[in-house]
Amino acid sequence: MTLTVDTSGTVTTPAGFTAVGLAAGIKQSDVKDLALVVNEGPDSVAAAVFTSNRVCAAPVVFSRNAVSDGHLRAVVLNSGGANACTGADGLDDTVRTAAAVAAELDCDAMDVAVCSTGLIGVRLPMVALLGGVTSAALALSANGGLDAAKAIMTTDSVPKTASHTSAAGWSIGGMAKGAGMLAPALATMLVVLTTDARVKPMVLDRALRAATAQSLDRIDSDGCQSTNDTVLVLSSGASDQEPAAEEFTEALTAVCFDLAMQLLADAEGAQHEIAITVTGAVSEADALLVAREIARNNLFKCAVFGNDPNWGRVLAAVGVTHAVFDPERLDVRFNEVPVYTAGAIDVDRSEVDLSDRQVELLVNLNAGAQMATVWTNDLTYEYVRENAEYSS
Amino acid sequence: MTLTVDTSGTVTTPAGFTAVGLAAGIKQSDVKDLALVVNEGPDSVAAAVFTSNRVCAAPVVFSRNAVSDGHLRAVVLNSGGANACTGADGLDDTVRTAAAVAAELDCDAMDVAVCSTGLIGVRLPMVALLGGVTSAALALSANGGLDAAKAIMTTDSVPKTASHTSAAGWSIGGMAKGAGMLAPALATMLVVLTTDARVKPMVLDRALRAATAQSLDRIDSDGCQSTNDTVLVLSSGASDQEPAAEEFTEALTAVCFDLAMQLLADAEGAQHEIAITVTGAVSEADALLVAREIARNNLFKCAVFGNDPNWGRVLAAVGVTHAVFDPERLDVRFNEVPVYTAGAIDVDRSEVDLSDRQVELLVNLNAGAQMATVWTNDLTYEYVRENAEYSS
Repeated sequence: MTLTVDTSGTVTTPAGFTAVGLAAGIKQSDVKDLALVVNEGPDSVAAAVFTSNRVCAAPVVFSRNAVSDGHLRAVVLNSGGANACTGADGLDDTVRTAAAVAAELDCDAMDVAVCSTGLIGVRLPMVALLGGVTSAALALSANGGLDAAKAIMTTDSVPKTASHTSAAGWSIGGMAKGAGMLAPALATMLVVLTTDARVKPMVLDRALRAATAQSLDRIDSDGCQSTNDTVLVLSSGASDQEPAAEEFTEALTAVCFDLAMQLLADAEGAQHEIAITVTGAVSEADALLVAREIARNNLFKCAVFGNDPNWGRVLAAVGVTHAVFDPERLDVRFNEVPVYTAGAIDVDRSEVDLSDRQVELLVNLNAGAQMATVWTNDLTYEYVRENAEYSS
Repeated sequence: MTLTVDTSGTVTTPAGFTAVGLAAGIKQSDVKDLALVVNEGPDSVAAAVFTSNRVCAAPVVFSRNAVSDGHLRAVVLNSGGANACTGADGLDDTVRTAAAVAAELDCDAMDVAVCSTGLIGVRLPMVALLGGVTSAALALSANGGLDAAKAIMTTDSVPKTASHTSAAGWSIGGMAKGAGMLAPALATMLVVLTTDARVKPMVLDRALRAATAQSLDRIDSDGCQSTNDTVLVLSSGASDQEPAAEEFTEALTAVCFDLAMQLLADAEGAQHEIAITVTGAVSEADALLVAREIARNNLFKCAVFGNDPNWGRVLAAVGVTHAVFDPERLDVRFNEVPVYTAGAIDVDRSEVDLSDRQVELLVNLNAGAQMATVWTNDLTYEYVRENAEYSS
């Protein structure tokens, strides 16, 4: 990624957006738990990607419908409750939330997306939430991006924001929470992206799918998929500039990638961030398949926690996939040290130093010319503790 | 399983078998590390199933060939080294081991199966191993079954043996080590079964595949597959009785099931044994798919460690499968308490007591009439510690 990304930028960096984050009393503690991001126009183009989990939460069901026409006026987000597995009543709560925002903004409820994160299987405290919506509408500000990012935090230790401003002057801003497919308890991934570039609905949808496929979709801790994962992008067109689709996609990818790396770095309990690159694959799909299999292998992840460059566990993970490769032609490198080359032991594993937080694993299938990288964390005591003690 | 299984029986319980376990010096410590099981006849029928991992160890490559004609005279097993990822030299070591056993028994090397377990990627100490083979051949005994079971232990805390004797008088014996697909470090699953029933090669092969499919294949901790997993069955025919295929298969399944439960109970670091039963599936394959997905879900397994009957994580695991079900018709029960019924919260989770070591999870897909059970363990600090500190 050669584009400059500014982590002090937020969803209100692009022109045409206001936002707010406040404590509505959804959480027991007196912290921010409600965020509102409003597209003030002139355009109201939007696109989204959602969890592929078939057991998905009410706000996902609702927002998937709301964005299906390629337009949204606003996004309301709450922490303190996922509103998942709450049945018809839960869906009704989501509809009432969207309607309350729509009433404040004088738009249709189907122009409002809703995102929720927190405990599964409990109803949201609607009096507090609806009161919060009224307060939020009054407090919207062109500088509210950081507060909004704070209000969606659950077990996150820091708010996560980023922006990119093009040479031409249009910009993209974003905020993220949780760890998505990193998936510690409560860690639904919610991402809201904003832009003042003019982008047609079809172009915005394609750009978002391309950007997330290369970034947020490639961080993978344990393969567990949340019921609530949502990534939204809103275009105000307020810059009155319409970049080429490729240029816009590249910039959106850069912002998504930066947010993804912020999520990875804040994954609860992790001691290492591991970049798993698979090269020499006959297809990118094959490379991804192998990289994800390694990323989900508990034995490998425990070994990295123990600073052990255990190439045997890497090979065992590669071996369970149906990717095209010859077991006798595999290469494995840890932090550039070739520990296994052409199906045989190479440099002794004691030469590998895994004491740094960043680990680079490279597997060459020697079967083709395609490659892919997946990022994950190690499996630690802390991961077990957090996911044993917290409910979700 | 209504058949009686005796855990004091071993591979030498059936007539026509001798065995031995001794310290050959393969391991640094002075513990038993070499086992030999010999079929003294009159028959020498055999069958086997092996790991489906494409990166498999030299002894698996060799033994798959050796057993392919449906006959084996003996099995030699070592702990202290897996002989995996050791290339052509490693395969040569396996061939030399089989040849040494064959020379002692005056048979062909291709009538000897070889099993190894321990570290991946290191050569075996062949002087010690071959010396051990000579000593083992001299010490073979009709009472050597327990010593053999001890010699194949790695991180196992107890030897695992079982037998079943039919009313007609023929019997099946067995030993097991490790935890196979339970897969803690070093825990390759090796199982040797013996019988004095007369069984034709095709019948024995089918019986073994049926028995393991309902037992050893259904214990699954983290989805990691070893490079060395091997299950062998040898028939001496010494009882001169030929049971019906179904009767024999039922007995073999009972012995395999008992050994599987012993492996589960000895899984390193586990605090709970979890039986995951999926009912109401349109096919057994669908039921297995869902049960395995739950069994491999780290968030669910951490929750059980924390005594949390987290049905939300169960539903999220079910939701990522492509099994046939309607998300709004799912039922979840923990230890018979219906916490989620017909897509809605039912009895409060606080009514569930997970303090016992045995946990029963039941998921009803309400889509058909098929079912399956998979057994797994919880994810604990101890699991992480053992797999971070030990190499394999």
